[in-house]
Amino acid sequence: MKKPGSPQRIAGFDPGTASLGFAILEKNQGELKILICDSLHTGKDTPFEKRLLFLYEGLKKLVKSYRPDVVACEEVYFNKNARTAFAVGSVIGVILLLAGQKGLPVFMYSPIQVKMSVTGYGRASKGQVQEMLSRLFKLTQIPKPDDAADALAIAFCHANSIRWRETEG
Amino acid sequence: MKKPGSPQRIAGFDPGTASLGFAILEKNQGELKILICDSLHTGKDTPFEKRLLFLYEGLKKLVKSYRPDVVACEEVYFNKNARTAFAVGSVIGVILLLAGQKGLPVFMYSPIQVKMSVTGYGRASKGQVQEMLSRLFKLTQIPKPDDAADALAIAFCHANSIRWRETEG
Repeated sequence: MKKPGSPQRIAGFDPGTASLGFAILEKNQGELKILICDSLHTGKDTPFEKRLLFLYEGLKKLVKSYRPDVVACEEVYFNKNARTAFAVGSVIGVILLLAGQKGLPVFMYSPIQVKMSVTGYGRASKGQVQEMLSRLFKLTQIPKPDDAADALAIAFCHANSIRWRETEG
Repeated sequence: MKKPGSPQRIAGFDPGTASLGFAILEKNQGELKILICDSLHTGKDTPFEKRLLFLYEGLKKLVKSYRPDVVACEEVYFNKNARTAFAVGSVIGVILLLAGQKGLPVFMYSPIQVKMSVTGYGRASKGQVQEMLSRLFKLTQIPKPDDAADALAIAFCHANSIRWRETEG
């Protein structure tokens, strides 16, 4: 456990099979800094278990390099598409397994919570979220691809959540 | 790759967070033998990522001990309960990740396919499936708990599938 007030690193994940967005934010004395914001991609013709393995290995390297203190991940609605839901659920499993292996606490956020946190409006469009992220982090351009921007929004949402502030002591 | 006709081991999994059923079947010259049929259990008060880690570690030991050649897993319907679906999807992710790590091919079967394979009737009850498994394997008692019996049914389904026979020839 880090001392209260010491820098904390938040790993945000936007789970997907074809593209898994990730972002690592450092929170230091209330200041937020993006350490990395990108995504991993897998080929749709690769067997599903090999895609999961690729994502797992990629995330393992990320965690090893950036040593986050906590994992924030987007919750998925399973009533949209059963086929996608199965795949996304599996990717969440891989992310959470890694968190379990590294002893990192996990926080799940719904898309509405994330949008609310970034824009103040739970039904904001993807464009509005990205625009606000650019302003908040004083970026010269919107993070690309979309999944990377989504992961950044999730990490930001956690950085500003009450639960996180509570754990800071 | 094993020679055609050499014994093949099938790992059957019935994914669940609270209880993960598993069974290893050995197929030798058309004869089927149960090597193990049991389940792993996790406590509902344990953080979800730790439950996934426990299941992953348990399955890793199982695979190390029994060295299956192939993984057969039950597909899950995601239109029933969104909360359970998320959890079960994550467990499937952990099973498939392990298959990917060990280079084991994965086959997914729907509950209807499994019931059809064991009883010849896609809408058979759990009791009918268990009764038929006992007869097929000449068991003195029905495998317990239910998830272990389900995993055995999934492994049996794979042992009898056309796709499996094709890979043998």
